[in-house]
Amino acid sequence: MKGKLYLIPVPIHNEEDFNIEYTPPYLIKIVNQIKIFAVENIRTSRRFLRKLNPKYDIDHTVFELINKKSGSDDFIKILEYLLNGNNVGVMSESGCPGIADPGQKICDIAHQNKISIKPLIGPSSILLALMASGLNGQKFQFHGYLPINSLERINALKKLKPYTGSHIFIETPYRNQKVFDEIINTFKDRNRKLCVAIDITGKNEKIFTKKIDVLKNEVIVLKKYPTIFIIE
Amino acid sequence: MKGKLYLIPVPIHNEEDFNIEYTPPYLIKIVNQIKIFAVENIRTSRRFLRKLNPKYDIDHTVFELINKKSGSDDFIKILEYLLNGNNVGVMSESGCPGIADPGQKICDIAHQNKISIKPLIGPSSILLALMASGLNGQKFQFHGYLPINSLERINALKKLKPYTGSHIFIETPYRNQKVFDEIINTFKDRNRKLCVAIDITGKNEKIFTKKIDVLKNEVIVLKKYPTIFIIE
Repeated sequence: MKGKLYLIPVPIHNEEDFNIEYTPPYLIKIVNQIKIFAVENIRTSRRFLRKLNPKYDIDHTVFELINKKSGSDDFIKILEYLLNGNNVGVMSESGCPGIADPGQKICDIAHQNKISIKPLIGPSSILLALMASGLNGQKFQFHGYLPINSLERINALKKLKPYTGSHIFIETPYRNQKVFDEIINTFKDRNRKLCVAIDITGKNEKIFTKKIDVLKNEVIVLKKYPTIFIIE
Repeated sequence: MKGKLYLIPVPIHNEEDFNIEYTPPYLIKIVNQIKIFAVENIRTSRRFLRKLNPKYDIDHTVFELINKKSGSDDFIKILEYLLNGNNVGVMSESGCPGIADPGQKICDIAHQNKISIKPLIGPSSILLALMASGLNGQKFQFHGYLPINSLERINALKKLKPYTGSHIFIETPYRNQKVFDEIINTFKDRNRKLCVAIDITGKNEKIFTKKIDVLKNEVIVLKKYPTIFIIE
């Protein structure tokens, strides 16, 4: 019998903010029974397992590294574990595997080989930000990262048309302030709204949605916490 | 001091499949301390509270109904609770409040009145489906419901351009088969993929992603379970 592929969300906040009560107990039980993991970061994955269960037998656990550089050999290795009847857990560095990370490729291969995939309930900063934004949740679009080049980024922002739902994107934390300032300066529509969702589930969580016009007259300093931007 | 607005996801499966272990313990603790809820369906909300805590004092809990018919008076009532220092919990009929439901409007009003909003971790069929789909999770678009009229729906499907990320939509369960057949017959691109995610987190959960070309030659019968469709 083939194994199952479990998609295991991991915390999205800083490690020091870890609280086991954020995790559904069924996830802990499932993880305790898995001995092979495909992970984006071995060090953080080991620490997460130990936090879920301090007695977790890390030394007898297999970690296969899967990241942007992974080639077909790496994916075939994981497929073989599954075809040989082993359950495999997939963990990203943070958040939900399969969303903006290499977990997607593993799922693709699993589908091609009729492996059953079980996504587990957990934190997603994209979803939590959208829930709390008060912006359009009937229609929305996730754009991932905007271009790194400032001019290209401003052009991409200009293309986010209004009245077609919410536009969600992420940035690397050290560019938060720059991108925020660009958004404020790019949009001319007084009524357009921006949600900034900072350090979701973390100690410094802060979520605000305001008209861009209002934000122009405020002094907003964004620190280097993971941040989600949503424009409606 | 103002109250906080807590966004409380509720199970997305059938009630008989309820398992408390799918719920993060911190959500149960928070819910136990809330005495006022804005809900889409009072009956299911009461039952969910009782399942989270059989001793929950339902008789001393206030439920305000918020749905598509709610007018500004209903929303002002909730705002007043918050301004008077009460915490308020928002619950949809299933899944995450604020995503494709009236919770969005409450959050909008909360932001305008500088009420702090706290979204809690829980199940979202949209997100779980996307995670497991193996389709593009770097860029995706949620379209909500497609048009009810069959010709208009087929036209909407034709507009879902390939290579621009994943297109996610939902349907009312009794139209699942019709929509599935339309998708199969509308797309001419042999390599285009469709993910069908059925009854996510429920007893009949089934998630498959295949090329539309392959699906054309299979006999697929969709029952009336909640289903998410994703086309890449």
